[in-house]
Amino acid sequence: MPGESDFIDWIRAQQKPSDRVILPAGDDLAILRWPADDLLVVGVDQVLDGVHFDSSKHPPRSIGQKVMNRNLSDCAAMAALPAAALATVALPPTANLNYAKELYLGLRDAADPFDCAIIGGDTASWPNPLAVTVTILARSAGIQPLTRRGAKTGDGIYVTGPLGGSILGRHLSFSPRVHEARDLAAHYPLTAMIDLSDGLSGDLAHICRQSGVGAILEADLIPIHLDAAEQSRHDHRPPLHHALHDGEDYELLFTCSAPCGRAIRIGQITAGQGIQLQTPDGLQPLPSLGWEHSL
Amino acid sequence: MPGESDFIDWIRAQQKPSDRVILPAGDDLAILRWPADDLLVVGVDQVLDGVHFDSSKHPPRSIGQKVMNRNLSDCAAMAALPAAALATVALPPTANLNYAKELYLGLRDAADPFDCAIIGGDTASWPNPLAVTVTILARSAGIQPLTRRGAKTGDGIYVTGPLGGSILGRHLSFSPRVHEARDLAAHYPLTAMIDLSDGLSGDLAHICRQSGVGAILEADLIPIHLDAAEQSRHDHRPPLHHALHDGEDYELLFTCSAPCGRAIRIGQITAGQGIQLQTPDGLQPLPSLGWEHSL
Repeated sequence: MPGESDFIDWIRAQQKPSDRVILPAGDDLAILRWPADDLLVVGVDQVLDGVHFDSSKHPPRSIGQKVMNRNLSDCAAMAALPAAALATVALPPTANLNYAKELYLGLRDAADPFDCAIIGGDTASWPNPLAVTVTILARSAGIQPLTRRGAKTGDGIYVTGPLGGSILGRHLSFSPRVHEARDLAAHYPLTAMIDLSDGLSGDLAHICRQSGVGAILEADLIPIHLDAAEQSRHDHRPPLHHALHDGEDYELLFTCSAPCGRAIRIGQITAGQGIQLQTPDGLQPLPSLGWEHSL
Repeated sequence: MPGESDFIDWIRAQQKPSDRVILPAGDDLAILRWPADDLLVVGVDQVLDGVHFDSSKHPPRSIGQKVMNRNLSDCAAMAALPAAALATVALPPTANLNYAKELYLGLRDAADPFDCAIIGGDTASWPNPLAVTVTILARSAGIQPLTRRGAKTGDGIYVTGPLGGSILGRHLSFSPRVHEARDLAAHYPLTAMIDLSDGLSGDLAHICRQSGVGAILEADLIPIHLDAAEQSRHDHRPPLHHALHDGEDYELLFTCSAPCGRAIRIGQITAGQGIQLQTPDGLQPLPSLGWEHSL
């Protein structure tokens, strides 16, 4: 019966040599050479069966792609360059060696285009659903990382693409905006940035709270994805509702102190607190409908 | 009802400022200043309810301590200095805010003595048992990291303490041998090192396989913990069996090309393959009885 060490041997055989990676997965820890003068930008993210994906519907390769792409999207949110990743996988009893390999290949599908090596991890089996984590290490590489804290009164608010209805499939198949983020940060005076995972209303609230500012969004300017319109045919909520509150768009949301011609302007940062929506009927408070786990 | 953001706000309030940590948990990713000339030694480890601990018996604070200490022990295995950690927690429905705080305080109990900051993480709830991961970042800090690959024929084999019977409690309450490892590596010509998590027979097999060598252990020299004798009263296996094959001792196992007066010599590296045990009855092959997950 194939075991964990067969899987680990197989993973080792997949690893490519690299100048940065002195010792890859297979020892107690991996060893990297970190470039001098580069800030180390690092985070971890977990995806759980039944919460972030549905293993009865989603193939393991898609699940692997999604968890890696979520982490790469976090790099994009900071305008950082992905360098290396580590993963843990807790496998259910139904997962065989081939399932584990497909998960790993999904991680690689997402990481390879960004030359992001998978340098370590941990695999275990347990009599419960699939849980996967990815830790991402990224480099500043000449661009000061952007946080959620720098938005100032008067800054424009921008997004990089149309929003809403990602549940129809884009939540699994999105492209993390790493290159777009670094290109924007290199050419425009960006002041704060986040990737849209909780939804526009929720993620803009994060920027506003951490920057100590408020915001006005212009309903007419918000780009609505065709999926939002499709979704509204199912649930009869307006497409704008989906664009404002659906999560997992994985576009960038940022603020900029000068006009930015390469993204879509959707509003302006204001003094004070709270987010308001400008509609033909006037200004109205915009609640954050992002989902939160209760403890 | 307290939610995830209450927990995250509480964690943020716990964080201490640091020269190394430019931006702690609370943004998309954390930002660290990495010391020039320091190698980055990094890994991730998961602990799962029912596999690595039993949440019906072990309090959350002990579980937090264990998972962090396992990672610190991996740093010890490389003679690396812990610098920062990240954690993910997938909480069962029975876990309230206080349970989550106790888990975090357990992580901190273990990390604080090593000045290892917890700089990021991810929390979610799901209708399944507790799963925790810790990612550890460590520095070479003047000592070349030790791997499993350097053992040479004729090297002595050493351990840092008595072995066996950790299931009686030491698997939860051990002290990672970080300072001991760096002290040994600074003063003796160590050639390979690992921490004893799978058990002496299994972990020595890792060193032998990755170094392309064999080994002879001297049964009379292997230090047997009092817990191994206690455990043998329960299951009637000889105490030596427990010292050879039980896991989770978290002592260091290393090879050294010169006599090392600060650790316990238990055998010698040989040419060829496989591990043999020298007993009063002669040489006999020593199987690796370490536990492996099947896929």
